[in-house]
Amino acid sequence: GGAGEIGMNLSLYGTAGKWLMVDCGVTFGDDSTPGVDIIMPDISFIANNVDDLLGMVITHGHEDHIGAIQYLWPQLKCAVYTTPFTAELIRSKLGYVDLERTVRIIQPKDGKFEIGPFKGEFIPVTHSIPEARMLALTTKHGTVLHTGDWKFDPDPIVGPPSDTERLKQLGGEGLMAVVGDSTNALVPGTSGSERGVQNEFIRLFGEIKQRVVVTCFASNIARLKSIAVAAQRNGRYITLAGRSLWRNAEIAEECGYLPEFNDFLSENEAMLSPRDKIVIVTTGCQGEPRAALCRIAVDDHPEIDLDAGDTVIFSSRDIPGNEKAIARLQNNLIARGLKILTPDDHPVHVSGHPAQEELTQLYQWTRPRLVLPVHGETRHQQEHARIAQECQVPHTLIPEDGQIIRLGPGVHEVVTEVQHGRWGLDGKVLRRIGEGASKDRKKMSHSGAAVVTVVMDAKGKVVRDPQVSLMGLTDSNAETAISENLAALAHDAIEAMPKSTRIDDAAVRHAVALAVRRHINEVYGKKPVTDVHIVRV
Amino acid sequence: GGAGEIGMNLSLYGTAGKWLMVDCGVTFGDDSTPGVDIIMPDISFIANNVDDLLGMVITHGHEDHIGAIQYLWPQLKCAVYTTPFTAELIRSKLGYVDLERTVRIIQPKDGKFEIGPFKGEFIPVTHSIPEARMLALTTKHGTVLHTGDWKFDPDPIVGPPSDTERLKQLGGEGLMAVVGDSTNALVPGTSGSERGVQNEFIRLFGEIKQRVVVTCFASNIARLKSIAVAAQRNGRYITLAGRSLWRNAEIAEECGYLPEFNDFLSENEAMLSPRDKIVIVTTGCQGEPRAALCRIAVDDHPEIDLDAGDTVIFSSRDIPGNEKAIARLQNNLIARGLKILTPDDHPVHVSGHPAQEELTQLYQWTRPRLVLPVHGETRHQQEHARIAQECQVPHTLIPEDGQIIRLGPGVHEVVTEVQHGRWGLDGKVLRRIGEGASKDRKKMSHSGAAVVTVVMDAKGKVVRDPQVSLMGLTDSNAETAISENLAALAHDAIEAMPKSTRIDDAAVRHAVALAVRRHINEVYGKKPVTDVHIVRV
Repeated sequence: GGAGEIGMNLSLYGTAGKWLMVDCGVTFGDDSTPGVDIIMPDISFIANNVDDLLGMVITHGHEDHIGAIQYLWPQLKCAVYTTPFTAELIRSKLGYVDLERTVRIIQPKDGKFEIGPFKGEFIPVTHSIPEARMLALTTKHGTVLHTGDWKFDPDPIVGPPSDTERLKQLGGEGLMAVVGDSTNALVPGTSGSERGVQNEFIRLFGEIKQRVVVTCFASNIARLKSIAVAAQRNGRYITLAGRSLWRNAEIAEECGYLPEFNDFLSENEAMLSPRDKIVIVTTGCQGEPRAALCRIAVDDHPEIDLDAGDTVIFSSRDIPGNEKAIARLQNNLIARGLKILTPDDHPVHVSGHPAQEELTQLYQWTRPRLVLPVHGETRHQQEHARIAQECQVPHTLIPEDGQIIRLGPGVHEVVTEVQHGRWGLDGKVLRRIGEGASKDRKKMSHSGAAVVTVVMDAKGKVVRDPQVSLMGLTDSNAETAISENLAALAHDAIEAMPKSTRIDDAAVRHAVALAVRRHINEVYGKKPVTDVHIVRV
Repeated sequence: GGAGEIGMNLSLYGTAGKWLMVDCGVTFGDDSTPGVDIIMPDISFIANNVDDLLGMVITHGHEDHIGAIQYLWPQLKCAVYTTPFTAELIRSKLGYVDLERTVRIIQPKDGKFEIGPFKGEFIPVTHSIPEARMLALTTKHGTVLHTGDWKFDPDPIVGPPSDTERLKQLGGEGLMAVVGDSTNALVPGTSGSERGVQNEFIRLFGEIKQRVVVTCFASNIARLKSIAVAAQRNGRYITLAGRSLWRNAEIAEECGYLPEFNDFLSENEAMLSPRDKIVIVTTGCQGEPRAALCRIAVDDHPEIDLDAGDTVIFSSRDIPGNEKAIARLQNNLIARGLKILTPDDHPVHVSGHPAQEELTQLYQWTRPRLVLPVHGETRHQQEHARIAQECQVPHTLIPEDGQIIRLGPGVHEVVTEVQHGRWGLDGKVLRRIGEGASKDRKKMSHSGAAVVTVVMDAKGKVVRDPQVSLMGLTDSNAETAISENLAALAHDAIEAMPKSTRIDDAAVRHAVALAVRRHINEVYGKKPVTDVHIVRV
């Protein structure tokens, strides 16, 4: 396992012929995967060995760690081990597929659990969502620390700081390997504290004279609390725009993380309040076209209406690939006379991932024999490995997707490679991306499609004018001549065949497709996906 | 006219019923425009008024200013006014469509020309390509300064510095309006000098012990010269990888800008040289998959082969939208053990566009009555307008694509809006993007296509099993059952029709399409583009 550029997390740990899965995440499709919005790992390998899968451990509740459970669990049917807040997030998603009562979610007491040959222990760490956990996984061969996503935030606003004492203890006990987050391995220094963001909000909300809008990830409960506290200090009320924000805030309140939730206004109440008395938190920080902020930006939100002079704060980083969508959103907001603040100009965001000094600190404390940098692109993984080496970690290995790696006993090494890749939720069906239907649609998106029906008698004489459907090749009824030409060419192509082969459907199909594709390529410069229907009368 | 986020430039200036076009550029397609690689402005308006188009003025030779000439000139057939180097670049592109002898390219003596009611004057400015020009356009109503792309580089390496004296004179003579470059209006300070980049190359090429690879835009001749000078100072030979680099360098040499060209090695000679004696300049700085550097990165280049420890310098900015492709390229290079230097960590690039202090300087010198910020997104245009206002420019107006704006005489205002939009080169055909064939293909890329052939007798009885083509909906032969189900459903749908309507082809087509789409949606969650062929026997 191990995440690449695309960000879905799913790892497998094995011993004594048994497997334990850690995390089960998705990533999101884009224009390069038309028709596929949700992408997850191809789990053929473990699905084929499902009897030996003892369970699934979830480190925290981000989509790239939990998002695939609802789609893949039916093939796995194993118990899910996680924390209360994460469990609620998972249940909320399972509700969409009627699985919320079926899936057994176990919340280990004191964060410790035993599953067959595996002993697991959750170690609380800080991250941009409550209840993130590192997983210390012990077998008779030793202990592996799977970090999940983490940072060292001394003042995280929601939940306790990272349990650094336990990490130091693990170092003392002797750690076989760390499998760890590389996301910010290229960032010098430390990731910073949520407290700093809260202080900046307190300052800004006082300084700004009109409405304040803040957009951030819906699962960032500490950010939401920082906003709520800063709003309260400045005599502003808070409302939420976006269903996922309301849902996440409600779960956070149920878990005791957001007592402020009960004071939140409805969107409607907020719009009736004076402009200097309100803070609106919205989804859409990545420029997602259907999220609240994008709809607000084009004046298409049912409740919320902004005015020139209001301020929008982007309290998040730009996820790679979303730059254009975010720029488009910001341009729309600016065109309406709104002011924009971003992390480029104000300290309104801190990352949830460890920067270089935090990685160094982790390895100074845990002193593993081996580090496997995961969760990041090659450049992040290599830099992560370099940092580990500087901390005198004796071995590093950069894993690739699908590799089975022996961590111990004895020398670590890549043992074999198993089937891996990406499954996309293609409508209702999980399919491998870039193959089959997905590949065909990509081809059609470039070159269109053509289907010809020819009607022949048993001897191979064409007895009707061929019919031609051109799809994605012509603009309008203005281009009907081409269909007539193609019908004539299909007719000619059959007539040009030796009589003996005209009774062979495959031969006719081939000849007609060839003639049609050739002409379309001459006229339009396209080689469409082609099919031929043969009717014998 | 005026460019938005997508970067193609084409403006029209009109007086006394006559028009002059300024620039004629393209932008490039991406996954959001499948099948379309090259995009240009919809010129319906001027094509419908082509008798009144007196000519086309080209400010400089970048693709987003010249790239559409080869596609649009046949609809315009006007003379092209530009400088010698730009003329050679245009001719080289016209060669691809056999127009290089047909198009009349005029190189005005002393940069001055008269076309009907327009008096034009080229003012030399610095930019990231030789021979960039501002255009001062004078009619009886006054003078407009169209800046094109520009910066103030005191030491531009190739060509003279910007003609600031003439700009000051224009200010003294009284300027009606400036139509100007907004690209870097959000960047404080100045854009910096090419001299600084050259000095950094001189330093780096000495420090680096193995091969040096530099990737930059092929048209950046000053950059190429900086690399050549730095190579020579360090006893390194230079070679080029990428056809456009060779072509641009050759044109630069012919125009007297690159005497070093004659010392360049072939790629093959370069590979035979010691690793510390060579600098390779390559195309592909934007992660273009077919460019030399991407092929080198995956060891698929016919001549060039890099080794671990070699250094690749990215001497360019990331164009928005290319971030993921560039990251992929850099990851591939890093995975092969290559070192990467970028403008984020070393001063190996300066922009060709004016930063805030340069914009301020321009308005202090030229003191126009009106500024129209073009060439940039809304946020850049607004900041550009703000800067102009700070310079006491009395009027600013942010133009939108398609607007006809009266600059004078009298009060400036938006007069009307004409047809505008984007044309894509779709195979061999220019089509409006997002409509017709382009829209249909987008739909098919998400939902696939289905074509059904039904064979009926004259009374409407189905006399053969319907045939079904599913495209982009199924992975393989494993999914044939669906086609049989659909054939049966098509059959049933017709049988369910009142006998009287079965003789109506349109009614049958509708009923069959409905039944087929409904079932496909149930099974796959997709509503495909559908067509029905009806054969009456």
